[in-house]
Amino acid sequence: MSDSKKEIALPIWVMYYDSDAAGVMHNIAYLRHIETARTLLAKNLGMDFRTVAETGIHAAVVRTEIDYIAPALLGDEIVVRGRVTEVGRVRFWVEFEVVRGETLLARCRQSLVLVQMPEGRPVRVEKGFPALLLQ
Amino acid sequence: MSDSKKEIALPIWVMYYDSDAAGVMHNIAYLRHIETARTLLAKNLGMDFRTVAETGIHAAVVRTEIDYIAPALLGDEIVVRGRVTEVGRVRFWVEFEVVRGETLLARCRQSLVLVQMPEGRPVRVEKGFPALLLQ
Amino acid sequence: MSDSKKEIALPIWVMYYDSDAAGVMHNIAYLRHIETARTLLAKNLGMDFRTVAETGIHAAVVRTEIDYIAPALLGDEIVVRGRVTEVGRVRFWVEFEVVRGETLLARCRQSLVLVQMPEGRPVRVEKGFPALLLQ
Amino acid sequence: MSDSKKEIALPIWVMYYDSDAAGVMHNIAYLRHIETARTLLAKNLGMDFRTVAETGIHAAVVRTEIDYIAPALLGDEIVVRGRVTEVGRVRFWVEFEVVRGETLLARCRQSLVLVQMPEGRPVRVEKGFPALLLQ
Repeated sequence: MSDSKKEIALPIWVMYYDSDAAGVMHNIAYLRHIETARTLLAKNLGMDFRTVAETGIHAAVVRTEIDYIAPALLGDEIVVRGRVTEVGRVRFWVEFEVVRGETLLARCRQSLVLVQMPEGRPVRVEKGFPALLLQ
Repeated sequence: MSDSKKEIALPIWVMYYDSDAAGVMHNIAYLRHIETARTLLAKNLGMDFRTVAETGIHAAVVRTEIDYIAPALLGDEIVVRGRVTEVGRVRFWVEFEVVRGETLLARCRQSLVLVQMPEGRPVRVEKGFPALLLQ
Repeated sequence: MSDSKKEIALPIWVMYYDSDAAGVMHNIAYLRHIETARTLLAKNLGMDFRTVAETGIHAAVVRTEIDYIAPALLGDEIVVRGRVTEVGRVRFWVEFEVVRGETLLARCRQSLVLVQMPEGRPVRVEKGFPALLLQ
Repeated sequence: MSDSKKEIALPIWVMYYDSDAAGVMHNIAYLRHIETARTLLAKNLGMDFRTVAETGIHAAVVRTEIDYIAPALLGDEIVVRGRVTEVGRVRFWVEFEVVRGETLLARCRQSLVLVQMPEGRPVRVEKGFPALLLQ
């Protein structure tokens, strides 16, 4: 991966509370780690919690797709890699891969919109979060 | 909904630990409630925890798609409705709607396979979980 | 248990996402179920989400003590029993038992205070939540 | 803090999924972060997941006490500091502080025992986990 601001790599160590009785990481835990990666990616792009609170402009997930390909096991060291892949006028997409070394464990795609809170009014990407448009 | 064994309706009361600082139910919490509904649905179909433990045949989620349409708020009484929608030889689909009264909040579709543990070998639906095939 | 408003009994079915790789319910999951039981107990006492939102008076946990006595296993049907045990001028205590049939699995005690938000100012029990004082 | 193997310091950034509708970190999220810190501390002491799996000797939490002193807010950078404070023949204690800069947010104390799984038989500290006894 390049060190672009549009990309993130988050190392995770699979904990007991992420595993289930089958000894593997629970399918929901993947999404919590992806959430953390996405929040760090947003911070890189200038959308940290303070800016969100000051502007009232939130990025809301409107769709998630995730494919589970191979299980992550208790104690595994895995990495969540994420990047912005597509930016439209009102919607943008981020994609994630969860890997253990060279092995792909899961692939995820999320679509987000910007929303002006508390009214819940949609905000165009170029007005709300212009760094998303930079290459 | 009919009272078919292929369907489930789970009422949920949105708790503090499901809400986030925006006052709405966090996107991951939807998936935890869907997980509960799917587990109850599996129980209806004869795939309770005891049977899973005895046979070693687990239903593993291989894909999730979820669309977030309107927010659930702290204190809302919502319902997760689920049903089996499609059954192939090695894969089956379940679909869920999260509603508050007549309002659709989220729609989710999950694909699952049957796996013989601990080997991780795929099992045909008709061999592992025949009630899925019944109308 | 009597049907007093100061008591609650919440049945729980131990799900995969509550279990960990040791096949038992994770120690943190007990506290999430206790949280649900406490929220239902608060509702019985008139402190539902709507009233909390209107008055701005929140009950905040200031101390938790929990003893884990025997493990809950995946698929177990357990019950969380809770009751208000002691009410002072600014602090009150609730106690919980997690049981499987006659077997005591965990015992928990939490102390709470009432807080006027958003100022964070403490509120006396008799002013904020008088049903707590009733026998 | 010294760099002793009996101590750990884990930085945390308070995420949306850790906050609740009151804008503060939920009381259960503290315990998940403490769990992560304790797991890293155990790894320092030679009790990593691999060793646990090979020996079958698990450290089980038998009691948790936690005092919530001041709230952590969404976006806060906090630190969980942990250390082993007392080691008996069959039981040991770990203590944690959650801080934001100089401000103490929470203080926690947990008691653990060593258990030989799957039998569930207690194991003496000196037999199961001797690094705990070192100063």
